[in-house]
Amino acid sequence: MSNTQKNRISVDIFGTQYVILGTEGKDHIRHVASLVDNNMREISSKNPGLDVNKLAVLTAINAVNDYLKMKEELERLQTELQKEKEL
Amino acid sequence: MSNTQKNRISVDIFGTQYVILGTEGKDHIRHVASLVDNNMREISSKNPGLDVNKLAVLTAINAVNDYLKMKEELERLQTELQKEKEL
Repeated sequence: MSNTQKNRISVDIFGTQYVILGTEGKDHIRHVASLVDNNMREISSKNPGLDVNKLAVLTAINAVNDYLKMKEELERLQTELQKEKEL
Repeated sequence: MSNTQKNRISVDIFGTQYVILGTEGKDHIRHVASLVDNNMREISSKNPGLDVNKLAVLTAINAVNDYLKMKEELERLQTELQKEKEL
């Protein structure tokens, strides 16, 4: 059994309430939810005909894409840092 | 007018076809789509009662959360790299 405290927080994303359970702080969870909400509203404003389901999937695609780009940048920096340390 | 070539690619995510338009390479888009698909299937297997819409939103939340953690790590590394260069 883990003693890690789980936070239970209710957030509103694109008009629907979600209960998020996580070990992250409540402010962090709220921040993540607001980013998802903003991204869905942005995609929706550009594609008014999209249903919520597709909107959410496209938001997930954007987020994963951003994540992968960030990961590549991180790996590049790690290599650069390693080289600096060897100098 | 931009001359950047846009790739148009059809992907299957959780049983639905999506046409993705983007300047990224086709393999990259397929990779992103497969990660979103896997994440949705993983969340669905743990929460069989969830509808597709909530599933997609939770997938987006996970992806944004991973993105933010990666960003913090990147910022930490950038600071570390700056210090190494100043030595």
